[in-house]
Amino acid sequence: VISPNGASGTRVIAVDAMGGDHAPLEILKGAIEANARGVSVVLVGQPRVIAPVLEQLNSRLPIVEAEAAIAMDEPVGLALRRERSSLRVAAGLVSSGDAHAVVSAGNSAAIMGIAYQAWKMLPGIDRPAFGGFLPARTGPVFVLDIGANTTVKPSHLVQFAVMGSVYVQLSQGTENPRLALLSNGTEDSKGTKEVKQANETLRKLDLNFLGNVEGNQVFEGIADVIVCDGFSGNILLKGAEGVVNEIFDMLRTELTKDLMSKVAGAALTPAFTRIKRRVDYEEYGGVPVLGVNEIMINCHGKSHAKAITNAILLADRMAKERLPQRIREALLEDTGDASRRRRLVRALHLSHE
Amino acid sequence: VISPNGASGTRVIAVDAMGGDHAPLEILKGAIEANARGVSVVLVGQPRVIAPVLEQLNSRLPIVEAEAAIAMDEPVGLALRRERSSLRVAAGLVSSGDAHAVVSAGNSAAIMGIAYQAWKMLPGIDRPAFGGFLPARTGPVFVLDIGANTTVKPSHLVQFAVMGSVYVQLSQGTENPRLALLSNGTEDSKGTKEVKQANETLRKLDLNFLGNVEGNQVFEGIADVIVCDGFSGNILLKGAEGVVNEIFDMLRTELTKDLMSKVAGAALTPAFTRIKRRVDYEEYGGVPVLGVNEIMINCHGKSHAKAITNAILLADRMAKERLPQRIREALLEDTGDASRRRRLVRALHLSHE
Repeated sequence: VISPNGASGTRVIAVDAMGGDHAPLEILKGAIEANARGVSVVLVGQPRVIAPVLEQLNSRLPIVEAEAAIAMDEPVGLALRRERSSLRVAAGLVSSGDAHAVVSAGNSAAIMGIAYQAWKMLPGIDRPAFGGFLPARTGPVFVLDIGANTTVKPSHLVQFAVMGSVYVQLSQGTENPRLALLSNGTEDSKGTKEVKQANETLRKLDLNFLGNVEGNQVFEGIADVIVCDGFSGNILLKGAEGVVNEIFDMLRTELTKDLMSKVAGAALTPAFTRIKRRVDYEEYGGVPVLGVNEIMINCHGKSHAKAITNAILLADRMAKERLPQRIREALLEDTGDASRRRRLVRALHLSHE
Repeated sequence: VISPNGASGTRVIAVDAMGGDHAPLEILKGAIEANARGVSVVLVGQPRVIAPVLEQLNSRLPIVEAEAAIAMDEPVGLALRRERSSLRVAAGLVSSGDAHAVVSAGNSAAIMGIAYQAWKMLPGIDRPAFGGFLPARTGPVFVLDIGANTTVKPSHLVQFAVMGSVYVQLSQGTENPRLALLSNGTEDSKGTKEVKQANETLRKLDLNFLGNVEGNQVFEGIADVIVCDGFSGNILLKGAEGVVNEIFDMLRTELTKDLMSKVAGAALTPAFTRIKRRVDYEEYGGVPVLGVNEIMINCHGKSHAKAITNAILLADRMAKERLPQRIREALLEDTGDASRRRRLVRALHLSHE
């Protein structure tokens, strides 16, 4: 049993110390900072790799031993067979009740696979999805799937919609979140076969479904939850990241062109910092794996300490709020409206329990 | 026969005066400006709608009569059956040799359908595609398809690649353009079934094929030509448009927060204008329909005069360069390398002529 080392009560966050491009140093720094902010943390990984770095950093965070790290490009089938990988051991700590969430910057496919393997799916959900927040005019917009499922069936899109809607309601306190399907046109007739069928089903459910939206409307904040397959979601997200980087790069170039620009640019530094913060993924920390019975946060492989700290704080908030349990309850909730319940059951393949 | 009214010699650009959200006023303004810059223009549409506006604008540009406009949301099947729509009449002028390109801000699906119906496909190309330039760090990047084909077969992606490569070589003068497939990961194993198969085929062709790229890499300028299905291309393009709009909106807000910011912001106006120009679709004018035997430029439905002028200038340049003919020649070109030719023929289903 791991004794809690933070102010967060009995909740413990298991951190995969071996995953990510900057593991273990940046992961440990991020974990130490989260712990300093009151969250109980346990590091999972190979002690001979972690312990020396931890000592350098003057920290005594507990280590749970694992035998191997999963490589960033390791095929998921292989990764799933390693019984003592840091990720697998971390997930096991949650299964046994010794920890309450996992944070990892490792191989995304393995993260998804291990969450599924160790914890199983929520009732009515067939596939796990990655959800993530994008900054829009009116505030953060939740997009899912952003990379777990390259191709999807219409029923998966419907499940993402229900799950995303419940997640945003619980995590952001948004009553009746506005929901939309990402498509190449706003008309119901636009989109892939899967989008069109999902649109038809969603129109029949008692969700706040707006219909299809295009990429630009996502950033206008037209909806609170944007549903798409993982291929399109990845393109939307990475494309946006690319545009933001290029615009800031152009600004840097423009603002050092002459003395006048340099002076003006210097005066605007706080403004640029505020904007940059709104669009910086490190501020969001990581994205939850949705659809499984426990909490797993996946950080960008390139994460530095700040992203790890923010991801651990997010995991702790989600654990405190018991989010998977509440999503489960919402999915199974009897609203008293029998026909609504029947439609949801049909859409989600839920059993009538 | 239409007598040329510009300095561009015998080339005439047929402009659909009825298509677009701001037709006919903005279309006419744009056409008049392009004509003032030396391009011969003929307007196509209903004289009773166009003539009064043209008179207000003190212009005597020739009008070719058409009976109907195609509505922006008109089903393409219906639109294709109208024999005397402005778009159909404009395409007919090119078929008869009276004009050399068409520019329209109308219904994109109808534009694509009519170009296909009137002009047929280039040898070896099964489907027309919309290509468009996105601004990247190193200059414009050509992306296709950006909306014509919601779903594609692997062979279509390969054809887009060959066509895009030739187009960029001819229109930009880029020798041996760097080519990439848009995917949700850089590894060959990433992507939809279609992307994976297209990747495999492209690896075997003598093109400068880099492999898969992610959305952010598009804007880093890692490749000159980005190939994708029309659904993903639309999401990349519209998403980028949305991010640009939101960042400039945030800048506007930040730069009017206090006096210091206002003064600094005013000093930076020229810098912002330069950046805005690089990312503004109105500067690009419109996107060509690739794969057909003649030149059709599709403008954004929301186009104002400036976009129309730029689209007409683009159409005129393409006509001057005889681009479709040269793409055709490049597709049929005998490079003397028999095995390369065989691979291309196989990839494009070209007949051995």
